[in-house]
Amino acid sequence: MQVPTYQASTTSDCQLLAPNFANPMQIFHYPSQPEWAALQQRAAAQQAPDVEQRVAQIFADVRQRGDAALLEYAQTFDGADLRAGLRVTPAELEAAVGQVPSALQTAIRQAHANIRRFHEAQRPAEEKVETMPGVLCWRRAVPVQRVGLYVPGGTAPLFSTLLMLGVPARLAGCPEVVLCTPPRPDGSVNPVILFTAQLLNITTIIKAGGAQAVAALSGGTESVPAVDKIFGPGNRYVTAAKQLATRYGVAIDMPAGPSEVLVIADESANPVFVAADLLSQAEHGPDSQVILLSDSLAVIEATQAEVARQLATLPRAAVATRALDESRAILLRTPEEMLFFSNQYAPEHLILAVQNPEQLAEGVTSAGSVFLGHLTPEAAGDYASGTNHTLPTNGYARNYSGVSLDSFLKKITYQRITAAGLQHIGAIVETMAEAEGLSAHARAITLRLESLAAG
Amino acid sequence: MQVPTYQASTTSDCQLLAPNFANPMQIFHYPSQPEWAALQQRAAAQQAPDVEQRVAQIFADVRQRGDAALLEYAQTFDGADLRAGLRVTPAELEAAVGQVPSALQTAIRQAHANIRRFHEAQRPAEEKVETMPGVLCWRRAVPVQRVGLYVPGGTAPLFSTLLMLGVPARLAGCPEVVLCTPPRPDGSVNPVILFTAQLLNITTIIKAGGAQAVAALSGGTESVPAVDKIFGPGNRYVTAAKQLATRYGVAIDMPAGPSEVLVIADESANPVFVAADLLSQAEHGPDSQVILLSDSLAVIEATQAEVARQLATLPRAAVATRALDESRAILLRTPEEMLFFSNQYAPEHLILAVQNPEQLAEGVTSAGSVFLGHLTPEAAGDYASGTNHTLPTNGYARNYSGVSLDSFLKKITYQRITAAGLQHIGAIVETMAEAEGLSAHARAITLRLESLAAG
Repeated sequence: MQVPTYQASTTSDCQLLAPNFANPMQIFHYPSQPEWAALQQRAAAQQAPDVEQRVAQIFADVRQRGDAALLEYAQTFDGADLRAGLRVTPAELEAAVGQVPSALQTAIRQAHANIRRFHEAQRPAEEKVETMPGVLCWRRAVPVQRVGLYVPGGTAPLFSTLLMLGVPARLAGCPEVVLCTPPRPDGSVNPVILFTAQLLNITTIIKAGGAQAVAALSGGTESVPAVDKIFGPGNRYVTAAKQLATRYGVAIDMPAGPSEVLVIADESANPVFVAADLLSQAEHGPDSQVILLSDSLAVIEATQAEVARQLATLPRAAVATRALDESRAILLRTPEEMLFFSNQYAPEHLILAVQNPEQLAEGVTSAGSVFLGHLTPEAAGDYASGTNHTLPTNGYARNYSGVSLDSFLKKITYQRITAAGLQHIGAIVETMAEAEGLSAHARAITLRLESLAAG
Repeated sequence: MQVPTYQASTTSDCQLLAPNFANPMQIFHYPSQPEWAALQQRAAAQQAPDVEQRVAQIFADVRQRGDAALLEYAQTFDGADLRAGLRVTPAELEAAVGQVPSALQTAIRQAHANIRRFHEAQRPAEEKVETMPGVLCWRRAVPVQRVGLYVPGGTAPLFSTLLMLGVPARLAGCPEVVLCTPPRPDGSVNPVILFTAQLLNITTIIKAGGAQAVAALSGGTESVPAVDKIFGPGNRYVTAAKQLATRYGVAIDMPAGPSEVLVIADESANPVFVAADLLSQAEHGPDSQVILLSDSLAVIEATQAEVARQLATLPRAAVATRALDESRAILLRTPEEMLFFSNQYAPEHLILAVQNPEQLAEGVTSAGSVFLGHLTPEAAGDYASGTNHTLPTNGYARNYSGVSLDSFLKKITYQRITAAGLQHIGAIVETMAEAEGLSAHARAITLRLESLAAG
């Protein structure tokens, strides 16, 4: 890499392990375009060679033994005895509300309202189209009938993910919504998850996590209904299991990878805000991807100092430090160059911390979600502004959209042709079908036209 | 299976090999619901065990050796010497028009106009949404930047498929559209394909077919640009190659399987039309799936007789006969029962040959495309009515839509928050982030609010 004059951190640098170090990010000065590819590289997928094999075993086991397998895995992986039942009971659901602080209840309700408002506006409204006189074509949006929502457990209950998946599922009108989430060691589910589920009127809640939950959703067990499409994030076991599920005719929301942010900051940017946004990405996990582009070395250096300062008091500093170790701050020459770099990288989250973000935003061709201006942190979209936080990672913003109302709908096409319409379109179809060597297709028209002529 | 009293055809019945036989379809009388699953079964995927392995070899070879590998495969599989070039030249493109009969040119132009009109109406028009005062969220539809269209060769040039993929690609505004289609033994591409490509203003046309074409599109070669998403049907090698392409970060339109039709016919149906529609599906290939549901035994028996009669003079009778061998005509009791069966089966094409198709159409939950009434043959939608003929097969209508303008677009979400907006949403985000244990997320808000307060 060209002139990494400020490249203070490498994995072998012992400073990296201390939470309060001076130069948390690697800085690159004006890399040439041929050098960009290396800078746009994601950390190699850390798929342990045995993950796929282990997941395939779990899959086969759950598909064969059903609930019995789920009970064993809950004991092994979650330390939970679920012999009393894999499903959350109405009483458990009922009891959850009282355990959630009222400020949090209010916040979740408001976020729910915002997310609902934004996704409601995605409802397709298409007219019927008369493509020729008497040839009427249209689309109808029909909900995916059975959907499974996976919400990870782990260090914190990701109730925000449940909102992001449950709101569009409900708006789409999916008749069957099944929630899977891992149990706590005492066999219960975190009450904030249950409160959120109640808000969404989701009552089929399975205490199952990991690959075993995905396996159960893909084929059904005594307690778990089989579904048509599985949504939600997870660790590499869950990700591998979702990929495997597609072999059984089940659809998934999108391929998954570690979370990412790319910030484009010009000299108007506030380094305090930029540093806070980079850190809020870095704290997600040690494999989070963090990239800063700027045409101002002063901003990069000030941000570097701010990251170090804020890191010192961050509860998840250890996690963030490891993510920052792979982060890159890149000095480029122009806004156009920064935009070009970003479009090639195709970040999950793109923050435009610039003077005139609307102009730059028009040129974005690949990104999951874009945050405009200095007062629009990614955190707002992660929780409450209304946009969905389930977004394409790992460069998939080149060819995938984030989760939306569309993700829970199918568009079925319809057509109806009148006698007059058939006379208009008939010869066209006959000519094309014969040219493709498909005579029976032509006849399906000819026989009808003959019947009309005779009639 | 219960009471298959009229089950005249089995694979062991030697009559099946003669084109003019009396009972081409198996008939089932009032099967009970537990018996439906067997009747809804698709023919087992006839994936030869070596297909995946062979495709993986081709893939690795093309990704390593590029054009040199493509030239060899063209020689081996297509019998074509392409040393003069893998790309169709402007002169070849120019010369094509003169070789296409003018009636066919007119038909293709009219079909193009209809398909364009229908897909144009799918252009999303969404307003910006102010979810809270000062919190503005919206979506912007951006074309997938580089798309690859695969159009099979074989017995006939499938120019209709090129229309179905090329029209939405152009409407979406995809900047780079690459067409791959196998060469003829003389190294040329069928002029009807080239004429259609010209109509679509597609000029990057690669003479490559099979798994090698998909491999080339997934990584690029000296002559073939790499793309972000690959569209189009193909044989099992192409299908396996598309699945493999997804491992390299390339998206595909949908999983593929043999073509299918399900016809629901009541006593108002015309057996001549129903038979013609069943045959136009059956002639596609020996693995085409053909199902007839009726609540009238008279209609089933008359259709059976008509299928036999029309089959006698069909050019592709041999192919159709093999497909009909696996076909099923099923007598059920009510329209509701027929609809329920169809929704479980999730057919690619659904023809409602009934008195009041609109009513039945409202109850469809899973189908690729629906054809209403006695004068709306599937053939119209296959070629020219305007709807897309690239549709989910093999039960994927439960969780996928057919190709549409949406397939060539990504929806990127955007948001911009004002100072007032941040004051509205700030506490909500802080509360939720802290409850999920993500303090840096909360700080990205807090630091901005403090800055605003400090003025």
